[in-house]
Amino acid sequence: MSVAMDPAAPLPTVVLEPIVRLALAEDLGRAGDVTSQATIAADASARWIIRARKPGVVAGLDAAALALHLVDPQARLEIVAGDGSAVEAGAAIAYVSGAARSLLTAERTMLNFIGQLSGVATLTRTFVQAVAGTGARIADTRKTHPGMRALQKRAVRLGGGSSHRFGLDDAILIKDNHVAAAGGVAAALERARAFAGHLMAIEVEVDSLSQLDEALPFNPTCVMLDNFTLDGLRTAVARAKGRTVLEASGGVSLATVAAIAATGVDVISVGALTHSAPCLDVGLDAG
Amino acid sequence: MSVAMDPAAPLPTVVLEPIVRLALAEDLGRAGDVTSQATIAADASARWIIRARKPGVVAGLDAAALALHLVDPQARLEIVAGDGSAVEAGAAIAYVSGAARSLLTAERTMLNFIGQLSGVATLTRTFVQAVAGTGARIADTRKTHPGMRALQKRAVRLGGGSSHRFGLDDAILIKDNHVAAAGGVAAALERARAFAGHLMAIEVEVDSLSQLDEALPFNPTCVMLDNFTLDGLRTAVARAKGRTVLEASGGVSLATVAAIAATGVDVISVGALTHSAPCLDVGLDAG
Amino acid sequence: MSVAMDPAAPLPTVVLEPIVRLALAEDLGRAGDVTSQATIAADASARWIIRARKPGVVAGLDAAALALHLVDPQARLEIVAGDGSAVEAGAAIAYVSGAARSLLTAERTMLNFIGQLSGVATLTRTFVQAVAGTGARIADTRKTHPGMRALQKRAVRLGGGSSHRFGLDDAILIKDNHVAAAGGVAAALERARAFAGHLMAIEVEVDSLSQLDEALPFNPTCVMLDNFTLDGLRTAVARAKGRTVLEASGGVSLATVAAIAATGVDVISVGALTHSAPCLDVGLDAG
Amino acid sequence: MSVAMDPAAPLPTVVLEPIVRLALAEDLGRAGDVTSQATIAADASARWIIRARKPGVVAGLDAAALALHLVDPQARLEIVAGDGSAVEAGAAIAYVSGAARSLLTAERTMLNFIGQLSGVATLTRTFVQAVAGTGARIADTRKTHPGMRALQKRAVRLGGGSSHRFGLDDAILIKDNHVAAAGGVAAALERARAFAGHLMAIEVEVDSLSQLDEALPFNPTCVMLDNFTLDGLRTAVARAKGRTVLEASGGVSLATVAAIAATGVDVISVGALTHSAPCLDVGLDAG
Amino acid sequence: MSVAMDPAAPLPTVVLEPIVRLALAEDLGRAGDVTSQATIAADASARWIIRARKPGVVAGLDAAALALHLVDPQARLEIVAGDGSAVEAGAAIAYVSGAARSLLTAERTMLNFIGQLSGVATLTRTFVQAVAGTGARIADTRKTHPGMRALQKRAVRLGGGSSHRFGLDDAILIKDNHVAAAGGVAAALERARAFAGHLMAIEVEVDSLSQLDEALPFNPTCVMLDNFTLDGLRTAVARAKGRTVLEASGGVSLATVAAIAATGVDVISVGALTHSAPCLDVGLDAG
Amino acid sequence: MSVAMDPAAPLPTVVLEPIVRLALAEDLGRAGDVTSQATIAADASARWIIRARKPGVVAGLDAAALALHLVDPQARLEIVAGDGSAVEAGAAIAYVSGAARSLLTAERTMLNFIGQLSGVATLTRTFVQAVAGTGARIADTRKTHPGMRALQKRAVRLGGGSSHRFGLDDAILIKDNHVAAAGGVAAALERARAFAGHLMAIEVEVDSLSQLDEALPFNPTCVMLDNFTLDGLRTAVARAKGRTVLEASGGVSLATVAAIAATGVDVISVGALTHSAPCLDVGLDAG
Repeated sequence: MSVAMDPAAPLPTVVLEPIVRLALAEDLGRAGDVTSQATIAADASARWIIRARKPGVVAGLDAAALALHLVDPQARLEIVAGDGSAVEAGAAIAYVSGAARSLLTAERTMLNFIGQLSGVATLTRTFVQAVAGTGARIADTRKTHPGMRALQKRAVRLGGGSSHRFGLDDAILIKDNHVAAAGGVAAALERARAFAGHLMAIEVEVDSLSQLDEALPFNPTCVMLDNFTLDGLRTAVARAKGRTVLEASGGVSLATVAAIAATGVDVISVGALTHSAPCLDVGLDAG
Repeated sequence: MSVAMDPAAPLPTVVLEPIVRLALAEDLGRAGDVTSQATIAADASARWIIRARKPGVVAGLDAAALALHLVDPQARLEIVAGDGSAVEAGAAIAYVSGAARSLLTAERTMLNFIGQLSGVATLTRTFVQAVAGTGARIADTRKTHPGMRALQKRAVRLGGGSSHRFGLDDAILIKDNHVAAAGGVAAALERARAFAGHLMAIEVEVDSLSQLDEALPFNPTCVMLDNFTLDGLRTAVARAKGRTVLEASGGVSLATVAAIAATGVDVISVGALTHSAPCLDVGLDAG
Repeated sequence: MSVAMDPAAPLPTVVLEPIVRLALAEDLGRAGDVTSQATIAADASARWIIRARKPGVVAGLDAAALALHLVDPQARLEIVAGDGSAVEAGAAIAYVSGAARSLLTAERTMLNFIGQLSGVATLTRTFVQAVAGTGARIADTRKTHPGMRALQKRAVRLGGGSSHRFGLDDAILIKDNHVAAAGGVAAALERARAFAGHLMAIEVEVDSLSQLDEALPFNPTCVMLDNFTLDGLRTAVARAKGRTVLEASGGVSLATVAAIAATGVDVISVGALTHSAPCLDVGLDAG
Repeated sequence: MSVAMDPAAPLPTVVLEPIVRLALAEDLGRAGDVTSQATIAADASARWIIRARKPGVVAGLDAAALALHLVDPQARLEIVAGDGSAVEAGAAIAYVSGAARSLLTAERTMLNFIGQLSGVATLTRTFVQAVAGTGARIADTRKTHPGMRALQKRAVRLGGGSSHRFGLDDAILIKDNHVAAAGGVAAALERARAFAGHLMAIEVEVDSLSQLDEALPFNPTCVMLDNFTLDGLRTAVARAKGRTVLEASGGVSLATVAAIAATGVDVISVGALTHSAPCLDVGLDAG
Repeated sequence: MSVAMDPAAPLPTVVLEPIVRLALAEDLGRAGDVTSQATIAADASARWIIRARKPGVVAGLDAAALALHLVDPQARLEIVAGDGSAVEAGAAIAYVSGAARSLLTAERTMLNFIGQLSGVATLTRTFVQAVAGTGARIADTRKTHPGMRALQKRAVRLGGGSSHRFGLDDAILIKDNHVAAAGGVAAALERARAFAGHLMAIEVEVDSLSQLDEALPFNPTCVMLDNFTLDGLRTAVARAKGRTVLEASGGVSLATVAAIAATGVDVISVGALTHSAPCLDVGLDAG
Repeated sequence: MSVAMDPAAPLPTVVLEPIVRLALAEDLGRAGDVTSQATIAADASARWIIRARKPGVVAGLDAAALALHLVDPQARLEIVAGDGSAVEAGAAIAYVSGAARSLLTAERTMLNFIGQLSGVATLTRTFVQAVAGTGARIADTRKTHPGMRALQKRAVRLGGGSSHRFGLDDAILIKDNHVAAAGGVAAALERARAFAGHLMAIEVEVDSLSQLDEALPFNPTCVMLDNFTLDGLRTAVARAKGRTVLEASGGVSLATVAAIAATGVDVISVGALTHSAPCLDVGLDAG
């Protein structure tokens, strides 16, 4: 993928700011870090290291840097292993320097962003590695932590994954309820085609091969094969590969993902990447 | 605990609103649910069920209800198994009714709140059950998802856990960096006492029994025994139980928590409750 | 287009609210409608009519209704000719009723939304009618009034137009600067393909038929033919129609649009729809 | 007007910020400029020119500069022809320099502000020139684009126009509905006088010369002559010039404004300045 | 003043909302009223009375009602003695009813608004009564509590006072620094006249009778006589009464205000009305 | 109190920003400082002094500096007598320098913050001095100006006072209504104990010595002795001193506070510190 410039460019500050400000507000409350105020001199300065305590893929440094900047514009965060880097346990991720009080005030907020988002990037990479060589992409879903969607989806890309639609408005994804309401896959796709602008992708979820057959004549951008067996996936690939993008979805785990990828589907979406990734353990060390 | 009115009263709307609005904004984007607009009639109505697909403890219904209300004030959420209820796989949690489009527009946001927060409550209850009979309380930490602190801490209480300090400003918690900066446990506690108002609790983290001995004369509200061995905890309990609250912290897991509780400590804080709880699987069903 | 449910469903309130609140705030200022306070009794009520003074297509009633509701939740707006309706000069659009002071306080904000957005819908319909029978769609651009993009794009749909991408993030649109930076159309498309998720459309702007030829092998979702002559458009259509969507762009006016449509292009984008549509004259009448 | 310091000082950032942030948010969405991320290197820098493509009066550079600053504090905007300058087609307005991605990310938002507001300033100057030598001032109204009132009113001043009241709260303007509710012009003015603080101006709209006569004894700051014939205006001027400010209003166009001004009225208010000014064509060029 | 409709109509909610939400947020914090949650049943309801404990003029009920509504839309506030009413010690101002928890959660915020604003209204009335019969108006200044300007200025009107300009933008008030920068009173007034729109009032502060003489030919809306002696005021009145509004300002107290009013000035502005009014003692009683 | 680092560290900007922005917005309105725009050249610069006109304790410089920075990031505020300094009448508090227009635009907002908050600090110090030598602390209450709680509570600390709980959520304070609802002091304390986390303080208000006796066995953090006579306070001290913190509350004034302190209570809370402190007179001088 050498042609790609930036699988995961930093997010615009206007996107980061609301959730970073919310996170700072809930931690600093109404009086700030009273412990540091009580015990540390205002003019004490420090230079500390943010370190991984477990191996993983780094993410969240853009949010952490913004958090530190909002606490104290004079404080600095110097990146050692930037977003997307694979790090070993004990590796330095970044140096933070400035007033000791500022660093401690921002500490937990910075670590929460880095820990959560590195957790997502790390889990994603595990899935990506499990399907290496198959040509299948690992994609995220909308099962994200409230307020963190843009950040989590970028973390997925940092881990080598791919972005599904961002929200309800940037692509059409016809699910079973829509099919039922419209009176069938064909009717739903017809309505979607009439509705969509020329740059809006249309995906339809199907539960069976006959629904797949019903969908194909409408040239959807993608068909989601929901909870298909491996045999079902293979048949679907045989029938439709190259005519549309085929996405496998439903109950995907590390135990099953390689076999699913081996069927030849193009995309495998995994909710757990964002809804259940364990936090990567990161800490702030004095030296 | 029969005297307690409400271990986990619903959060004030002013607290819920920022994160619920942020979650809706990131999902609805700039044009809302285009799929439903394309395929479902504006006047179609429905009554659907939010169901647990795995057993767990329910949380997040207050946020889900607010999300639905903000999408459509006419839509209704009727609670079957309220926040704090233990449910089996397949159990109904709530009915949602109103315009089908509104329900689908709010669906993912509602489920993300319920899934994430029920995950926290469910994991908490597992820890609480593991220490049943010991008198130890399971407490949360500040290792929370950005923007979700108040909601996650309530989910911990719904699971039977207890709240640690909320943020940096509502209690003094002296950690190793503060001790180092102040020149020792005694000096740090002296400074904290001089700083604190009469209703501000003071906790100090100690790494050794000798630091514990240094702390006790200052009558801290609580002493955090950080990464103590079980023997160390037992000795600390023997020496200080009843003179201050003793909190065990550091590397607590389901494998170790019962033994830690058996040492007689008062509180065991567990970061994983909020930073790594897997999502509880919940879904929206037609009937 | 009988299969389409809703070419222009009402926007979610979370989208409308920021600009409607901003509009109210700038008109009501710090003390509200001092003239009505000075001259009209607090308990005087009224029922007035919002009327078109010129013929046109109605839009903006959703924003107007929200403005009235935010001024006074007791006041009512009853729609006579809803968003998307074609009206004659003098036709009633809606009744507003409630406290006379509330109606006058909200009047200018309501009329500004309806007038501006009906202006967009009306101009769009003129363009749409000019290409009737050709199969070409009239699409908007990102040349919108600050803060009004979602509302203006819906007004375009209400006028029979079609939506281009919403912003910088929901589709890739490669322009001359990107082509230059990437080192050519082919290189830029290769990078875009590697970057894009499976539901992200890719459009590329070309200035010549040779650039069109360079683009086609990469299967872009759409090719924008920028400032092509009519002959150039015809040649492009002959060469590429059916292989990709062809969009004509640049200097389109009511004088030229029919001829452009007759070349067989699929989409014609018109900046003037949103950047220069004159306001439709609407007023509030006593009876 | 040589004594005046600043007919149109830059607006305070607190006024600009809400609408500029809203405009950026709606264009950058949730992931920013994906096209530039995909095709342009992160470290590529550029220096480009914002140019007028048509002659006009420049406005909106303060908002454009803020937009660029919010996208990237390192990027710079150097003004060539500042707000209020008259420029020819092809003239440079400003240079923008910095990371190429930042410039492209901010491009459309900057151009939308400059184009819209320069359109207002340009149209205003045409009206101002049409009445040159008569002593009449051209004033704006409250028929402004939602969220843009302060910016549009400044653009009117940059074009040589004058500001009417800003909103509902900074002056009393008694219209026909108020007169009707109060029981006549005299009663309404009496109420207004009793209500107003000593720095609040009072204007009254009259439909006839007899209403003018009724108003004058109350010494209103201004009388608005609504939809008067030229004869009516002349009579009103003969009767009241110098006793109050006389404002002509209603159906003013470039075809009629000179004749209206020639009647001797002091102020002519023109809604079209802000509700229907066509955008000035401006673009971003590589050199 | 029988002709006036409403010396102090309720403020628009868009004006009240920011400061009321801020006040609630700072009191409810992140978990709400923990004491009521701990000790009072969720379904306990109550009907309590807000009472004055000292005599005064009531203000702030609009903000209090909004606070209660935001805490609990089901709770009710019934007004007994509305804004502007004079009450005796012990008098009921309003009943509040609903869930006991909601009432206690909103209690302090409601009482703070009512107490602070009634304090302003009450002090204003004392000043107004001190000048009764002289024809002088008591006006406020911009020396207000941060965030409370619109509310405090309304409280001044409720106490019988009059509103000075609202802020820096709704009238020109030329002070000594401006005079110095412009090169004299005449030059400053000339500049102001050239700058101002036709509805913008112009006031100039003068320190001496000779400055007054310099100002009068420019027909300012008002002249502020700053720190004049009583003799100075009398001379100014003799010279300028009826040609402009005369405002006495500087060091006005209850001890001096009657004598100042007796000189014949039109307006006396008093900073203490808003910057130093003691709170009116109000409380919430069970019955 | 030499061990304390910082009785009153500056507040985090995230806390200051909402109220400072609100204060600027209400003063600058929609067009900023029109007087300075009209009369002072854009490039005129100045260096002026903020001076106390009466003796007092300084507070509010952090908010004033932020206000100036938000108006003009180039302007500077240099502190002469920082927050917490005692100053004489005429003493310089700070220099402000930069564009003359910026200084005048920010002037009133800066002075309002400094005047209001220095008033609180000054009044607090008077109370603190009145109890000097007794060991009693002077504490604030929640009777604060809306939106200013964090700033006023810091001003109390700057005056030598101590902070009571911040809001409804950071400590339990059981008052008469809660006691009544719970069925007595003992029952309320039992419920509170079961509810509270290990770092949440519990205070109970008692009206009599018998209620004090009822409370003591539950080891509350503090007991508030509400409206006790001096004899009552002395008896309570004799009975409970050292077993809990004793707070005297209710009707405390400068006339009574010394006698109350002499009874031996630990804390005396004084609502007037924040609800009725007169503004300290401060001004901006040219030299």
